[in-house]
Amino acid sequence: MAQSLITSEIDFDADGKQAGYLRVPHSVHRSAYGWIPVPVVSIKQGSGPVVLMLAGNHGDEYEGQIALTKLAQDLVPEALQGQVILLPMTNFPAAETGQRCSPLDNGNLNRSFPGDPGGTPTQMIAHFIEEVLLPGCDVLIDLHSGGSSLFYPATLLRGQGWTEEEGATLRALEAAFDLPQAWVFQGGGGPHSTARTAMGAANRKGVIPVMAELGGGGSVTPDILSLTERGLRRVLHHLGMLPAYRPDAPRGTRALHAAGSVFAYEAGLFEPLKDLSDPVGTGEVVGRIHDPSAPLRLPVDVISPYDGIVMAKRPMAQVRRGDAVVQIGYDMPDLAPQT
Amino acid sequence: MAQSLITSEIDFDADGKQAGYLRVPHSVHRSAYGWIPVPVVSIKQGSGPVVLMLAGNHGDEYEGQIALTKLAQDLVPEALQGQVILLPMTNFPAAETGQRCSPLDNGNLNRSFPGDPGGTPTQMIAHFIEEVLLPGCDVLIDLHSGGSSLFYPATLLRGQGWTEEEGATLRALEAAFDLPQAWVFQGGGGPHSTARTAMGAANRKGVIPVMAELGGGGSVTPDILSLTERGLRRVLHHLGMLPAYRPDAPRGTRALHAAGSVFAYEAGLFEPLKDLSDPVGTGEVVGRIHDPSAPLRLPVDVISPYDGIVMAKRPMAQVRRGDAVVQIGYDMPDLAPQT
Amino acid sequence: MAQSLITSEIDFDADGKQAGYLRVPHSVHRSAYGWIPVPVVSIKQGSGPVVLMLAGNHGDEYEGQIALTKLAQDLVPEALQGQVILLPMTNFPAAETGQRCSPLDNGNLNRSFPGDPGGTPTQMIAHFIEEVLLPGCDVLIDLHSGGSSLFYPATLLRGQGWTEEEGATLRALEAAFDLPQAWVFQGGGGPHSTARTAMGAANRKGVIPVMAELGGGGSVTPDILSLTERGLRRVLHHLGMLPAYRPDAPRGTRALHAAGSVFAYEAGLFEPLKDLSDPVGTGEVVGRIHDPSAPLRLPVDVISPYDGIVMAKRPMAQVRRGDAVVQIGYDMPDLAPQT
Amino acid sequence: MAQSLITSEIDFDADGKQAGYLRVPHSVHRSAYGWIPVPVVSIKQGSGPVVLMLAGNHGDEYEGQIALTKLAQDLVPEALQGQVILLPMTNFPAAETGQRCSPLDNGNLNRSFPGDPGGTPTQMIAHFIEEVLLPGCDVLIDLHSGGSSLFYPATLLRGQGWTEEEGATLRALEAAFDLPQAWVFQGGGGPHSTARTAMGAANRKGVIPVMAELGGGGSVTPDILSLTERGLRRVLHHLGMLPAYRPDAPRGTRALHAAGSVFAYEAGLFEPLKDLSDPVGTGEVVGRIHDPSAPLRLPVDVISPYDGIVMAKRPMAQVRRGDAVVQIGYDMPDLAPQT
Amino acid sequence: MAQSLITSEIDFDADGKQAGYLRVPHSVHRSAYGWIPVPVVSIKQGSGPVVLMLAGNHGDEYEGQIALTKLAQDLVPEALQGQVILLPMTNFPAAETGQRCSPLDNGNLNRSFPGDPGGTPTQMIAHFIEEVLLPGCDVLIDLHSGGSSLFYPATLLRGQGWTEEEGATLRALEAAFDLPQAWVFQGGGGPHSTARTAMGAANRKGVIPVMAELGGGGSVTPDILSLTERGLRRVLHHLGMLPAYRPDAPRGTRALHAAGSVFAYEAGLFEPLKDLSDPVGTGEVVGRIHDPSAPLRLPVDVISPYDGIVMAKRPMAQVRRGDAVVQIGYDMPDLAPQT
Amino acid sequence: MAQSLITSEIDFDADGKQAGYLRVPHSVHRSAYGWIPVPVVSIKQGSGPVVLMLAGNHGDEYEGQIALTKLAQDLVPEALQGQVILLPMTNFPAAETGQRCSPLDNGNLNRSFPGDPGGTPTQMIAHFIEEVLLPGCDVLIDLHSGGSSLFYPATLLRGQGWTEEEGATLRALEAAFDLPQAWVFQGGGGPHSTARTAMGAANRKGVIPVMAELGGGGSVTPDILSLTERGLRRVLHHLGMLPAYRPDAPRGTRALHAAGSVFAYEAGLFEPLKDLSDPVGTGEVVGRIHDPSAPLRLPVDVISPYDGIVMAKRPMAQVRRGDAVVQIGYDMPDLAPQT
Repeated sequence: MAQSLITSEIDFDADGKQAGYLRVPHSVHRSAYGWIPVPVVSIKQGSGPVVLMLAGNHGDEYEGQIALTKLAQDLVPEALQGQVILLPMTNFPAAETGQRCSPLDNGNLNRSFPGDPGGTPTQMIAHFIEEVLLPGCDVLIDLHSGGSSLFYPATLLRGQGWTEEEGATLRALEAAFDLPQAWVFQGGGGPHSTARTAMGAANRKGVIPVMAELGGGGSVTPDILSLTERGLRRVLHHLGMLPAYRPDAPRGTRALHAAGSVFAYEAGLFEPLKDLSDPVGTGEVVGRIHDPSAPLRLPVDVISPYDGIVMAKRPMAQVRRGDAVVQIGYDMPDLAPQT
Repeated sequence: MAQSLITSEIDFDADGKQAGYLRVPHSVHRSAYGWIPVPVVSIKQGSGPVVLMLAGNHGDEYEGQIALTKLAQDLVPEALQGQVILLPMTNFPAAETGQRCSPLDNGNLNRSFPGDPGGTPTQMIAHFIEEVLLPGCDVLIDLHSGGSSLFYPATLLRGQGWTEEEGATLRALEAAFDLPQAWVFQGGGGPHSTARTAMGAANRKGVIPVMAELGGGGSVTPDILSLTERGLRRVLHHLGMLPAYRPDAPRGTRALHAAGSVFAYEAGLFEPLKDLSDPVGTGEVVGRIHDPSAPLRLPVDVISPYDGIVMAKRPMAQVRRGDAVVQIGYDMPDLAPQT
Repeated sequence: MAQSLITSEIDFDADGKQAGYLRVPHSVHRSAYGWIPVPVVSIKQGSGPVVLMLAGNHGDEYEGQIALTKLAQDLVPEALQGQVILLPMTNFPAAETGQRCSPLDNGNLNRSFPGDPGGTPTQMIAHFIEEVLLPGCDVLIDLHSGGSSLFYPATLLRGQGWTEEEGATLRALEAAFDLPQAWVFQGGGGPHSTARTAMGAANRKGVIPVMAELGGGGSVTPDILSLTERGLRRVLHHLGMLPAYRPDAPRGTRALHAAGSVFAYEAGLFEPLKDLSDPVGTGEVVGRIHDPSAPLRLPVDVISPYDGIVMAKRPMAQVRRGDAVVQIGYDMPDLAPQT
Repeated sequence: MAQSLITSEIDFDADGKQAGYLRVPHSVHRSAYGWIPVPVVSIKQGSGPVVLMLAGNHGDEYEGQIALTKLAQDLVPEALQGQVILLPMTNFPAAETGQRCSPLDNGNLNRSFPGDPGGTPTQMIAHFIEEVLLPGCDVLIDLHSGGSSLFYPATLLRGQGWTEEEGATLRALEAAFDLPQAWVFQGGGGPHSTARTAMGAANRKGVIPVMAELGGGGSVTPDILSLTERGLRRVLHHLGMLPAYRPDAPRGTRALHAAGSVFAYEAGLFEPLKDLSDPVGTGEVVGRIHDPSAPLRLPVDVISPYDGIVMAKRPMAQVRRGDAVVQIGYDMPDLAPQT
Repeated sequence: MAQSLITSEIDFDADGKQAGYLRVPHSVHRSAYGWIPVPVVSIKQGSGPVVLMLAGNHGDEYEGQIALTKLAQDLVPEALQGQVILLPMTNFPAAETGQRCSPLDNGNLNRSFPGDPGGTPTQMIAHFIEEVLLPGCDVLIDLHSGGSSLFYPATLLRGQGWTEEEGATLRALEAAFDLPQAWVFQGGGGPHSTARTAMGAANRKGVIPVMAELGGGGSVTPDILSLTERGLRRVLHHLGMLPAYRPDAPRGTRALHAAGSVFAYEAGLFEPLKDLSDPVGTGEVVGRIHDPSAPLRLPVDVISPYDGIVMAKRPMAQVRRGDAVVQIGYDMPDLAPQT
Repeated sequence: MAQSLITSEIDFDADGKQAGYLRVPHSVHRSAYGWIPVPVVSIKQGSGPVVLMLAGNHGDEYEGQIALTKLAQDLVPEALQGQVILLPMTNFPAAETGQRCSPLDNGNLNRSFPGDPGGTPTQMIAHFIEEVLLPGCDVLIDLHSGGSSLFYPATLLRGQGWTEEEGATLRALEAAFDLPQAWVFQGGGGPHSTARTAMGAANRKGVIPVMAELGGGGSVTPDILSLTERGLRRVLHHLGMLPAYRPDAPRGTRALHAAGSVFAYEAGLFEPLKDLSDPVGTGEVVGRIHDPSAPLRLPVDVISPYDGIVMAKRPMAQVRRGDAVVQIGYDMPDLAPQT
């Protein structure tokens, strides 16, 4: 198999705190020998689990980028058992410009795994993560938010587990992260996953993956950021990597399966009639699409085909056919936080 | 003085409800004889005040666009005394594309008054409003929000009045609109105003102007939309134009003067430490700017030079030097709603 | 083989008339869970041939888009024996913007077969047509025009047939469509075709394909549109699918082989000396390229290396080296319409 | 008054044939001391009228650009009495790129008179024509076509004349040009014209102006080009400037007043039901707008508010609200060519 | 007259070293209350001349930007008599993006004086410099280079002086700056100047202006940067503002008048046959334009209409009609440095 | 294997001088049947080596484009033994626009081998060169320069040779070309090369490849162009193909291995402290990055991790993290020119 052309400025085997760049070769008009600098931090002390934390997988998702930057500064190797590898701007060209996808190749990194070592920058980054970084890891934490076009309460995402044991491990990580909401995928996962996400990559490499959706709308909210930072430390403590950390009492997580998204079928301005966590019945109107360019034209109702609660909503007022305006979930049979 | 080249499809002198377009001539590659269709609605019955309502003055401000569209449909001439003229997408090219400024000429309509009949589309629209529409009006209600880059609680904006009488009129309109927050300008106003805003245009023409900032961040929130729709009806009732409307009890308005905005001096991701309505002291840190591209570089504090409360905040995580991250206000001496 | 990620909102096995969308997943900045809505209509009654009709394969070709939209409305299942599947905007992003190729990925759909289920939107659409739709079809009718850069008289395109029987079937379809001109390909076709066109896809799946070139220049002409609508009904009648339709007398088709295109070798403005159907001799000047930026510079002659008649012409006055200015064809030995 | 910064490489007072450039200073990134080369040709012999001929006033109108280029080459000073000044690419940046308006400043030259010597390139060109060239001229011939978005039969445009004598002169020029159609403006003209067109500029300077609309749709048709070249020579002969030219018999002109344009009010694909010169009655449907993205949605009729014939049509299938789809004219009382 | 809306963060009347920003209000989509930060530094001690130094007037001219940044750091108020005001990125949006003109408004600042307080950002900056800054200054030093499209040896630019006394002052400044080449303008200058340059603004305000052209081609060369830094200190010393500075011996300046520029008349790749300072005779070939897209087409000679030496050359290989390829100058009668 | 869709207008087997185009099919909006015209010249006489010369592999590298154009005109078949095939604008769309990479597909041709016959235009060109042209060649000469972002003295690039014999052949070609500098790669080469460059393609096909870096910065310098033209003739003479050519005495080549590039880690303006050929020690400061937008912020030193001399430098003043500012090389053990 072709090897990655990406080189790392830091030595992943060395103890201590290192920061540098993954150099993604990018020979272009303004820089013939240039490379894209993907920032990377390793904090390592002795033996213990290796946790890879990603933020900026989508460039317009900011809480994770800030949380990992603060973690990079605050975490001291002396307090750690094991290794934390941080990529606070994983798809750097996207994160630099605040776009979901890379402006260099339109690449949506989380639809690009397993990547291609001879492909575009986004594909090269995906390949490096799947083939170089993940094989040495135990846990992947991939921090997302709803991006520019969705907004989630602080939500943990995970699979149900490919095996009984993996399911237990995932439930324990969910409980440790202790976010108010969880979205539990049905099906998928496992070593034969064909998913093009970082989570799929982790499954293929036998790494335990969790994701989080931490707000969105292109904003950062103090509350969600605080839950994120607390959750990351709780998870490290849960994994035995931050022995001295003293977690407060867990607040509990409402675990949901996704029923589906409700979509706009006309272009216009969306007037929401439901907010986050509101219950929605099948056939209920969740919003209306107005057309101020023809002010006397009646609005078009947007009707939910699902029964459940609003898991996520679209923060952008303008909609077009095919845009998800809300996502509907329903409670899993067992709601109790698994601590 | 040169005359406007804009023609109206509706007759502003006729009773009843009419909808049509202001035709802004725009001879371009894809349409040599084309015009830009600025939607306009007139609802008129007998004599009484003439109120011009604008939304989409900035194209990325949506609550007003929806509120005026709904008003255009719901208001029946039979219930009205006087005339309501509605421009739900005032700077149509901006509103169509969801941009603050027009994509045709980069024009910020609310910095373009008194406009120019031989200028760009934005300038032609400004001129038409100031020279054709406003001279026949009594009151201007210009509905804004914080747009893509700011977020306000539902806020009434007004001057203090050029005369004692005008001040009383404005205070009464503020009370009638009954939004939770008001921003009262100090100074300005009057027939010699040089302000380039629609409010300045109204002042020059002897029309009583109020504005509103109704949320922002490119979103629509059900609560603010509801306050807006309620407020518009209350104002029409207050003006004697909707005699049959029965307003509920006023909730009161916190009236503020603006102390100033606090600005970013570095590029990066802004972590807010204050939320709307939080008190802020002079010299206090209101947020920090992080640089995930150099993860070990310490964040830069953003410090308030003002004492007061957070009137508005920036919802975009990415900042550059010169961006306002919060606006600070302080309570006016007299907080009581003036009903 | 990887499966298509495209889902259909309609059930291709159900009788009656259904309209909905093929949902092409497209996770982008403005819509993280969004999909591209490719409109699709199925009209089905009992058993009989299954005919797939495409328009908007190239987005700047309009007659077919209108003809299929009208057919979708006019055709009632009760009158039909078999099934008609209509994709009036096959490469929807291209058709929405009036571009030959998709603005999302620059994809020329008719050079993208057999497509890729994990590729760009254009590649995903090609794959869905070839692997999901075509295997259930008997006949493909792919409606084109000359697009923005060419103009054809209403022209039927077909192969000569991979077998004697297929040749007869194709000649009969040509006669049934009854357009004034036909362009008959030499060679190609068959189950081992490597052609990247929809016609190639059909050949690979054992589906009988015909195309049509229906005008062009970005325009719609009433005459060609009328010939198109008439031809589609005649073909359905010919296939036994519209038993009650009463075709008028056939007008006959002039069948041509293509000799080749004549190309510009300089940039400038092309002055045509020949019009559609004009005879052209080898070595004859078909037009001149002028350079008004150097007005005394003599024009450059464009000379035909072929003998025949003008099958198609370029409607754009501006040319560059490598642009086809006319296409030359010559009569097939047997000119008689094959009815 | 500020003077033009444009310099001419040719001497307008000299006899003979000269070609060169008007140098429009344009100091930009790729050329700090650069100028825009507007090609200009002067052909002069002895005394006689001075005729300024413009083409490429709109850059996507091609017949005139070719006709003036050919005239520049074919006309010999020895055969001429007086002077012909040719600007075959008047708004050069627009003509070079085939755009109606200049890509440098979005300037529509024919909406930019009287221009501004300190303005954008388009404004500088307008000013030079009005203040430098026209004061020395007797007749202006401004060659247009429908551009990319309209198509006209070969049509002469003229005013009715500010004085009786001017009216007669204009009628005679119309007859001399001998195009099949004429569009005679009602009102306007004269030394106090405020029109922003080249024709307005000519009127202000006491120069007799005629325009022509010569096809369009971005194409060149041999017939219209031939009528143009013939007409220009006939006009020069009529003015006594080409004494040896022997015109053939006039074919006659159908002179129309414009009733108005008919506009699209929805976006979609326009299906024309009328062609050039077809009669249209008030209230008659001239076309329908289809929406293939919602194939079962019924088309919207486009209805003429005017009685008359189709003077011009839109060749672009895609329409939006505000686009003219046909222009309607009606016969002037006196149809006879005035020779 | 309308006042500038630009505010300064620093107090120009205060002693000591201050750095801050000129805030140019710019209310746009991504920042409704934002401003453009034009960096400004004032270094002041006691009384003495006030010198305004500009760099980044054109954004792609870099030596001056670096030289003023270094000067801002190195100059201590204690060593100074008088005041130095530094604008190292005068047209900040242009300098930030490395473009000659502002990406916000295409404004070429040095063609925008006297500016407009209600205009575009570039016009607002020009107005602020002319109306707010220059009236308090004695000397203007405007540091340019050839930008992206020209290359100059280190060259002082000045007028000949509106009065005898001013001429002497200018000659003395040229000698003090001591660059190897000087370009002395003929004519122009004085209080009635209509020049749109910063130099014109200074002349209108009675401020003594000199410019410099310091290399170019988008590069920075150590030698020219060193000459620039030395020259600035020499000038301050010459003005009595840096009494402790000890200049080395002057090296002398070759003073030239400009004969004119030589222009390309074809597009292609320019092969220079002359280098900087080479002598050129009238009618001599200074280069050839090749067209590799038609490799057997003979090159076109570029011929000088002037006699003299090469003052400046174009560093970009690609040329189009109207591009200056070399500028020719000739020695002034008196070459001796005027000290 | 799939075959190239590119067709050649010239016959590579014919004697004499031919010029024409490689037609790269490119069916796009403005030209449905169009092709990209890659200019090609063949000059052939009798038997002898076949040499392929490329320029415009990167479109912003100009010396080679001019040199091959002049060679195409000057070389007469009668003087030649063997065949020279010239591609003066190899990646034509890039060369036409003066960009390193193709504007059609962002393709960097020299990172695209072995190409793809069904891929983008850049990939199709790479495939044609590797699979159609190179198999018939003996020697490849690929003329580069530093492009827009680097500047090299005239430099020969070559491998050390896969075999002893190939090494000798390459040393002899270096000596024959006789440029002042050579960059000798360590490792690589041979029939199993995976390099994506034209040199890699040549190695895979058993063709002897050399490259040259001939200046850069988007400029053409007379000296380097002259060395290039002389070197090409010397190489042809050395190969026995130009028997009558009489080379002058060799001047000698300084042969270097590359130590590595030194990169910027901050954005700003780069002040170089070293010039071409200057010695640099490990840990030495080679330049400083200034930030004029914060004028009192101290510059950041750029430090060399290598010992050697400056082989190449960046001519662009603006830098970002990841840009190479200088490349460092060191002398090979044997400096003597190998003649």
